[in-house]
Amino acid sequence: MLETALHYSHYLLDKAVKTGDITIDATVGNGHDTLKLAHLVGSTGRVIGFDIQEQAIQTTLEKVIADGFKSQVDLHLSGHEEIGSLSLEDESVSAVVFNLGYLPRGDKSIVTTPATTLEAIQHSLPLLKKDGVLLIMVYYGHEGGRNEKDAVLSLVETLPQKDYNVLRYGFINQVNSPPFLLAVEKK
Amino acid sequence: MLETALHYSHYLLDKAVKTGDITIDATVGNGHDTLKLAHLVGSTGRVIGFDIQEQAIQTTLEKVIADGFKSQVDLHLSGHEEIGSLSLEDESVSAVVFNLGYLPRGDKSIVTTPATTLEAIQHSLPLLKKDGVLLIMVYYGHEGGRNEKDAVLSLVETLPQKDYNVLRYGFINQVNSPPFLLAVEKK
Repeated sequence: MLETALHYSHYLLDKAVKTGDITIDATVGNGHDTLKLAHLVGSTGRVIGFDIQEQAIQTTLEKVIADGFKSQVDLHLSGHEEIGSLSLEDESVSAVVFNLGYLPRGDKSIVTTPATTLEAIQHSLPLLKKDGVLLIMVYYGHEGGRNEKDAVLSLVETLPQKDYNVLRYGFINQVNSPPFLLAVEKK
Repeated sequence: MLETALHYSHYLLDKAVKTGDITIDATVGNGHDTLKLAHLVGSTGRVIGFDIQEQAIQTTLEKVIADGFKSQVDLHLSGHEEIGSLSLEDESVSAVVFNLGYLPRGDKSIVTTPATTLEAIQHSLPLLKKDGVLLIMVYYGHEGGRNEKDAVLSLVETLPQKDYNVLRYGFINQVNSPPFLLAVEKK
């Protein structure tokens, strides 16, 4: 009955994202979230995706085309800290999604890192519109993962409660560093 | 859009508890959860409530009678560690609810304590049926609250993942030790 952190993040996206919305997939990876967002925003919306790995962008582009979502998805072969270079107005985005760690079934030595992850989160926050969400799936079992987890927690725990709700959701009795969800909602 | 821990606990109760079920309110307090459970189980179900304060039992009994729930509610003026004395079969209960801390608007010096809280949780776990839930609202801002929080976390974090899912849900950017929810689901 209790949902995994991943399922709960999808439940929140279903609630937060409407047809025509602008959204960001900060870590495209195998494209699951890009496709989900593309489905939610529809042909009048927009999904802007980032990944530093050509393999991730290429695989996801093929899926996007196959599913008929090409018109609403822009993929960028660059790090998510480039969110700061997007010409988007403040309070114009309904969802930003991060998956920390490495590309599943990819090169496990290529991982997200605290400096660029924090920069990407900080660039994302002003873009969120009221009731918009920034969702971070925190995978931290890999080398350096705990440092990144702690750095991200330190950042979101100190977001002012008059402007944001910050939720932590996850199972806590599992071995192997189970992922958890951080959900930041703009009030 | 993000729900408070208290609202999320009610959402889980709505999913877990059906007409005719047996349920336990381990800390009756002002009776909110007793009434909610009584409504969910209906006249064919049962709510067994515990509280060590006569004020809590008396106030709640009046509400129970006023709402027409007398037939399905049994209130015990005793500590929740007495859950172990109930003549209930294992795997017969769909929900057990705890609210740690003091009675709101009551005597703030009377609080739940680690020893009896842990004993009550340990007595409750075998009673849970498959997909049943044990919900603990952890208020820990009072003196001794952090000790109790840590003791409860240590217990539930080590429940075997083949038998239980243990979820932690709560806002993490709030001042004044906001309560969080621990939800234990029997697999």
